[in-house]
Amino acid sequence: MSKLFGIGVGPGDPQLLTVKAIETIKLLDVLYTPTARNNKPSTAFRIADQYIPKEIDVKKRKFPMTNNWHEKRKSWNLIAQEMVTDVKQGKNVGFLTLGDPSVYSTFSYIQELVDDQIKIEIIAGISSFSQIAAISKMPLMLDDESLIVVPANTKQVHLEQLIEIGENIVVMKVAINYPKLFAFLKDSALLDQAYLISNASMETEQVINLQDCDGTEDLPYFTTMLIKKEGKDK
Amino acid sequence: MSKLFGIGVGPGDPQLLTVKAIETIKLLDVLYTPTARNNKPSTAFRIADQYIPKEIDVKKRKFPMTNNWHEKRKSWNLIAQEMVTDVKQGKNVGFLTLGDPSVYSTFSYIQELVDDQIKIEIIAGISSFSQIAAISKMPLMLDDESLIVVPANTKQVHLEQLIEIGENIVVMKVAINYPKLFAFLKDSALLDQAYLISNASMETEQVINLQDCDGTEDLPYFTTMLIKKEGKDK
Repeated sequence: MSKLFGIGVGPGDPQLLTVKAIETIKLLDVLYTPTARNNKPSTAFRIADQYIPKEIDVKKRKFPMTNNWHEKRKSWNLIAQEMVTDVKQGKNVGFLTLGDPSVYSTFSYIQELVDDQIKIEIIAGISSFSQIAAISKMPLMLDDESLIVVPANTKQVHLEQLIEIGENIVVMKVAINYPKLFAFLKDSALLDQAYLISNASMETEQVINLQDCDGTEDLPYFTTMLIKKEGKDK
Repeated sequence: MSKLFGIGVGPGDPQLLTVKAIETIKLLDVLYTPTARNNKPSTAFRIADQYIPKEIDVKKRKFPMTNNWHEKRKSWNLIAQEMVTDVKQGKNVGFLTLGDPSVYSTFSYIQELVDDQIKIEIIAGISSFSQIAAISKMPLMLDDESLIVVPANTKQVHLEQLIEIGENIVVMKVAINYPKLFAFLKDSALLDQAYLISNASMETEQVINLQDCDGTEDLPYFTTMLIKKEGKDK
């Protein structure tokens, strides 16, 4: 039975796709992908490129990068209905997402728009925060500790509350709110326990030493912070 | 250069290993694995079994299941020092973990005991909570929402505080504290927004409907709860 597949391709290294993701890509008749700037393939497409069969029907579509919710929703709905048509014609349709389709992904919205019309399957992927823990060799959590993952563009008061209550905190897309976040960590004496990584597992991966920073640095879009408030030894 | 590799094998389905995990297993000279009950292979070993070369030197070691911290630490240290000896002899040594080595994993302790003596590499794996989101088709987080992951055996007051403050909450190993957690969710009118899954992606996977529960059920050890406090539409 044909389906729409949301496929996580992991954080950047093509070896971080799962066997299931690769096997699923091989089953596809159609692959929808956002057109990136200059008509280049999207980041997710480039990561999975070597696993994508040459004969697959790649449909490039425009996913607007705008804060206008209604405009975005309208575009997504048009693409989603195209996908429904394809699946109803017996085609296996795929959509690739960077990282994990369940973590801050456009696929979640597409899924919501079509899940009463066609079958959907989600193929989990390695999230950037898992990879950041692997690179930095800092466990995300141990014993009875919690992990909190929050994007830097959440309300500042909520962000501060979560950092105060949590033991291990991942702040995603730090660049958006970096000066405020830096100031808060400095005031809370947490700078020594915070680690910054940009573009984890991509060719442009970069570990940034916060001790050399003053909060005015221009950070890449995919920069993530891991704050570990507990010492390793308990 | 020889190394100690902490390799995540994902939540249960052997297809959920990454290419990198499989390639790394092929490089190993020695694989350390806990002896499970009845001398059976550990869960992580069984998941990766089909990818483990026949000629590999498998060293079964006892990892005590006890709450006595010093006893555990003593056993881990003995095994860790064996690993150090192997790596210093030029061998590539592996340790498999269920899910992701950065998420509540024994590997984190072993790593801490040896990381000033030998090289270590961590291979991220799909965590159970990623897979639970994939199975249930409920996004872990959208937009500016946070995700909180916490084990049920954390302090009850901390657990309740995290559930109150968070938007999406994963409670791991629910069985340990299930009656108290059930009562809290009932009092907070959150039962309708909580989902229970046992043994995600294993052959024994089971979705448990909380509407049919009264808090006295006997749940499997690997039972996880996902609480989604926000509606999908904002």
